[in-house]
Amino acid sequence: MALLTLQRDTTQTLTEQLAARFATRIRDRLMAPGTRLPSVRQCAALHEVSPSTVVAAYDQLLAQGLVEARRNRGFYVRDWTRKPRSAPDQKAPEASFSIASSDPCEARRLNAPISASTLMRGMFHSGSDRPQPGMGVLPPEWLENPFMATALERVSSGRGLLDASIRYGDPQGDATLRRVLAERLTEQGIDATPAQVVTTIGATQALDIVSRTLLKPGDTVMVEEPGWSVEFARLSALGMRLLPVPRLASGPDLAVMARYCEDRAGTPEAPRLFVSVSVLHNPTGFCLSPASAHQLLQLAQQHDFHVVEDDTYHHLAPDHATRVAQLDGLQRTIYVSGFAKILAPAWRIGYLAAPPALIEPLLDTKLLTTLTTPTLLERALAQCIEHEQLQRHAERMRARLAAARTRSVYCARAAGCRFVTEPAGLFGWIDTGVDTDALALRLLDAGYLLAPGALFHATRTPSTLMRINFATAQQPHFWAAFQRARDTMVKAP
Amino acid sequence: MALLTLQRDTTQTLTEQLAARFATRIRDRLMAPGTRLPSVRQCAALHEVSPSTVVAAYDQLLAQGLVEARRNRGFYVRDWTRKPRSAPDQKAPEASFSIASSDPCEARRLNAPISASTLMRGMFHSGSDRPQPGMGVLPPEWLENPFMATALERVSSGRGLLDASIRYGDPQGDATLRRVLAERLTEQGIDATPAQVVTTIGATQALDIVSRTLLKPGDTVMVEEPGWSVEFARLSALGMRLLPVPRLASGPDLAVMARYCEDRAGTPEAPRLFVSVSVLHNPTGFCLSPASAHQLLQLAQQHDFHVVEDDTYHHLAPDHATRVAQLDGLQRTIYVSGFAKILAPAWRIGYLAAPPALIEPLLDTKLLTTLTTPTLLERALAQCIEHEQLQRHAERMRARLAAARTRSVYCARAAGCRFVTEPAGLFGWIDTGVDTDALALRLLDAGYLLAPGALFHATRTPSTLMRINFATAQQPHFWAAFQRARDTMVKAP
Repeated sequence: MALLTLQRDTTQTLTEQLAARFATRIRDRLMAPGTRLPSVRQCAALHEVSPSTVVAAYDQLLAQGLVEARRNRGFYVRDWTRKPRSAPDQKAPEASFSIASSDPCEARRLNAPISASTLMRGMFHSGSDRPQPGMGVLPPEWLENPFMATALERVSSGRGLLDASIRYGDPQGDATLRRVLAERLTEQGIDATPAQVVTTIGATQALDIVSRTLLKPGDTVMVEEPGWSVEFARLSALGMRLLPVPRLASGPDLAVMARYCEDRAGTPEAPRLFVSVSVLHNPTGFCLSPASAHQLLQLAQQHDFHVVEDDTYHHLAPDHATRVAQLDGLQRTIYVSGFAKILAPAWRIGYLAAPPALIEPLLDTKLLTTLTTPTLLERALAQCIEHEQLQRHAERMRARLAAARTRSVYCARAAGCRFVTEPAGLFGWIDTGVDTDALALRLLDAGYLLAPGALFHATRTPSTLMRINFATAQQPHFWAAFQRARDTMVKAP
Repeated sequence: MALLTLQRDTTQTLTEQLAARFATRIRDRLMAPGTRLPSVRQCAALHEVSPSTVVAAYDQLLAQGLVEARRNRGFYVRDWTRKPRSAPDQKAPEASFSIASSDPCEARRLNAPISASTLMRGMFHSGSDRPQPGMGVLPPEWLENPFMATALERVSSGRGLLDASIRYGDPQGDATLRRVLAERLTEQGIDATPAQVVTTIGATQALDIVSRTLLKPGDTVMVEEPGWSVEFARLSALGMRLLPVPRLASGPDLAVMARYCEDRAGTPEAPRLFVSVSVLHNPTGFCLSPASAHQLLQLAQQHDFHVVEDDTYHHLAPDHATRVAQLDGLQRTIYVSGFAKILAPAWRIGYLAAPPALIEPLLDTKLLTTLTTPTLLERALAQCIEHEQLQRHAERMRARLAAARTRSVYCARAAGCRFVTEPAGLFGWIDTGVDTDALALRLLDAGYLLAPGALFHATRTPSTLMRINFATAQQPHFWAAFQRARDTMVKAP
């Protein structure tokens, strides 16, 4: 509940209001552990209060255990969520992910998800109803449609609801939905049978199941950098070692991957998996080239690792985009996708398509983690796909997004930002010229949640880049606030 | 699709039919890796075919890689699901769980869920429509009710469906459902606020989230024995070391627990967690005594471990049953329950209630594993609870189960079985006098799935005990088949 300006006519003192605002942000992870609070002078100037008000507010946060004072260096957000067990074993609070750490357990103790949570909590943060340029989803109102209701009615009429409720569904997922998904995959050039499809609670669970099935704690995984930090956090939390692979326009940097594999060949550190958002890569918008897909598969063959292809942005992508799974024919690729970006995030339906020999082990992991998935919603989704409604809806979303992209690109450029990559899909990857971690904190006061570049790196380092959502970054008032904040930073860095 | 008798008038030869029957069972995990196939002589006698037909069928299974021949010892089911990666690293196929293994990764490689899957696959096995005495759920037709449809209509009418679909729900779970659950917990004597409740995909995900949040691979966990093998499998798959604690009538064997804790105090092997089905324990039906709960909490305090209280059978239990969480006030107990046993297994709704300081870390794990949970179904469930319909339904189920229990107990005793524990709740824990692994295989041919005692032990050892489901073990024809099979075993062991 970000107060945009402090209120001078309430029963709460300015000190209390200021302390409460910081406390909420820290609890919502909008300020991660290790983040430095603004200096007393800066904070006083920003909020137009006296320095003593700020000092009193910081003292309240100190008393609440939310921040800590470091001698001569100011106030820093504490890691307040993880209660030390017996002996304190605090680690450097700056480190968010364990990169190829020698101790597979270390990552676990670091409370890995922190910086990823920042953005994820933001996705659910109801503090402001302004469009949030840092979000990873289309605005909810874009997703409104009349056919979900029709589909739900159809599948729950008569004995439909009972049939879809009183017995556990097929552990692999509703048979109709799997048939429809296999047909769509085949149309897309990925030959899959319904027996190769497993439904999941969103693409999130699909990625989790794959990691838990193919890897054991301590295993080495190659990930794209920049990349989606939630995937880094999940793998770190499972005790995996991450090797970041630079993402280039045509695909992953294969020379780096080859070196990783060759240096570790025959050792327990040999990479076992590569996780890739091949199409409309997050945050760059890059799409994999056919040549790159081919070479990637050759490397995977040579060094015997699996590829997880996360096609989360599938419905926003051009029809002709190349997928690794097309070339591979699901031999050593596990294809993952879902419907949260295009239809119904809260239905939580995702799926994976995998080599036949992996289906049983993947299914075992699904059984151990959620047993089955909700039949009713899977049947309703199958209706939406089968009646082509989802496809037409996706076409409309793509057209609407293209128009928003044009406007957002114009605004960003007018605000002096440079596109680091060619604008495509949902996200723009832009250079602001100033540290985006600091910028993000300032813009929170204006009610905007940003996605600073540091969030997309496995090791959190300051960056002048940030990701914008084209659908939610087309308002001139956001860019005006952006420019004001940046100008202040340039003048008084 | 278990063929109950081989068909002599089809185009498929008897050899093909026999091989296909074994292949289906192996693929469905009804015969776990390491299980010995019947001898050629036994099999020929059982199916009234010539020994050469059996030999030919076993040869087909050998060619399909489903079984292996061991010199002079017969045929054994292979672990066909896990493709060795490069060098073969097969382990002893009998071992299903790693008990306090020195290598936290070892459990992962053992493909832990095998024997747990046997029963879980059985839950979804559509091969026979007879009541399955080994199942862990009430018969689906018992769960039929008119109020689910009303609840779903109510929450999806107007803009209800859109609101519950187009944006991610609250990561902690629907606010109304959490309020209702907190109220019910408080009525039950477990003081909880809605902020202490997190909804999950069934109790299964709740248990998974708790393990992943509180433990790191290699950590030591105390589990009840006999106990529910899926919990053993999940913990093993996460790389945990299991310490089995005998379950007594009044609660866990506290002397054994104290010894575990004292022997390992101050070492990395000190137990960090105890997982318990306190009320209507599976498979014994035991309920925790207040004194035992009190002493358990004292031990937990002294040795600084958490308690996970899995109250899956909550709705089938007497109102006055003592829970650890009641005494503890959710200080170091995480309470877990769900609705699959009583209302709608396929809605997949469970929840946990935890100490306030653990909610944020638990929520981080939920976000990394499924992001959120389906809002629509959570809202419909909240309606069913709030309008007292679920409560009245549960009362009806308890009355119906009590009647079934009386009949099943009578049948079991008439068939010469002894109840090892006082009959209560859903399950009976009985001594059959013969090896129940072998018995289970024989009864499959009669179309019945059993739950042999070995499945409830962390180390799979032969047992003459088995678990019966009172709701599905009241048919005389099952007990007749049971007696025939057992008599054959006694005559020709």
